[in-house]
Amino acid sequence: MSTSTKESPATSTLTMPSDRELHVERIFSAPRDRVWRAYTDPELVAQWWGRGNKLVIERMEVERGGHWRFVEHSADGTHGFEGRYREVTPPERIVQTFEWDGMPGYVIIETTNFHDLGDGRTKIVATSLFHTTEERDGMLNSGMEQGMNESYAALDRLLARID
Amino acid sequence: MSTSTKESPATSTLTMPSDRELHVERIFSAPRDRVWRAYTDPELVAQWWGRGNKLVIERMEVERGGHWRFVEHSADGTHGFEGRYREVTPPERIVQTFEWDGMPGYVIIETTNFHDLGDGRTKIVATSLFHTTEERDGMLNSGMEQGMNESYAALDRLLARID
Repeated sequence: MSTSTKESPATSTLTMPSDRELHVERIFSAPRDRVWRAYTDPELVAQWWGRGNKLVIERMEVERGGHWRFVEHSADGTHGFEGRYREVTPPERIVQTFEWDGMPGYVIIETTNFHDLGDGRTKIVATSLFHTTEERDGMLNSGMEQGMNESYAALDRLLARID
Repeated sequence: MSTSTKESPATSTLTMPSDRELHVERIFSAPRDRVWRAYTDPELVAQWWGRGNKLVIERMEVERGGHWRFVEHSADGTHGFEGRYREVTPPERIVQTFEWDGMPGYVIIETTNFHDLGDGRTKIVATSLFHTTEERDGMLNSGMEQGMNESYAALDRLLARID
């Protein structure tokens, strides 16, 4: 297998910089403005956030203090997720809370930074801060990484078909 | 001043058991069931939670996964607060999230335990867990302790006039 491809399959890197954090980096083959829109336009979010499953955006007020609530309809059932925006700084950074209906009141702080790589690609750097190490590890053991990569793959496909 | 009163003015004790927590204890001269009702019946909550100010209970679903949202109308303005119930175990414990509209996305985990002292009094033991030390200290510096004590004094008055 000596073939050299310009675009190898994208992979995310997941690390644990502290005992209450997760850190994820992922490169997308699209300019930053397009990636930003895919994260902030409800019609686009619905096409990738839920791992490619049907996603109902019940609420999505992309501004400081605004709320969001998504319901994913997958083969294993219906799952609600919700939170609130702490910071929205286009096209650079979003800070928001995240909780899953299955564990109400367990709140994660998600910080997503959008880095323009200058070559038409964008690097997403996302950190998740939990209240406890146990909550962080529970998230890791829930299959979160696989679900995240399925969503990122759906985002790859979306970014390839929009301008 | 040698007068000995059976009921000295109630005071709360505030301590910091870790770098991300606050711990408050406060004794109320009422049986536990009455104190529990004062914390969970919206009509009663409206009479003490907002330091004695007008409090509008926009939402209060006292069950696991339920949401709450209160708006306090005070001399210094209108302040919204909201969160979600993680655990409701009558008449012993409530665990809920708490955030103030002025700092959206900064979420505190509030655990309130109701201890029956066996003599017609009830001890409230409340812990607040913050994501960071800075958020904990910011809350302390916001006048939180005074506001809390004003609310507890309003609760004293409410408990004395209900059965």
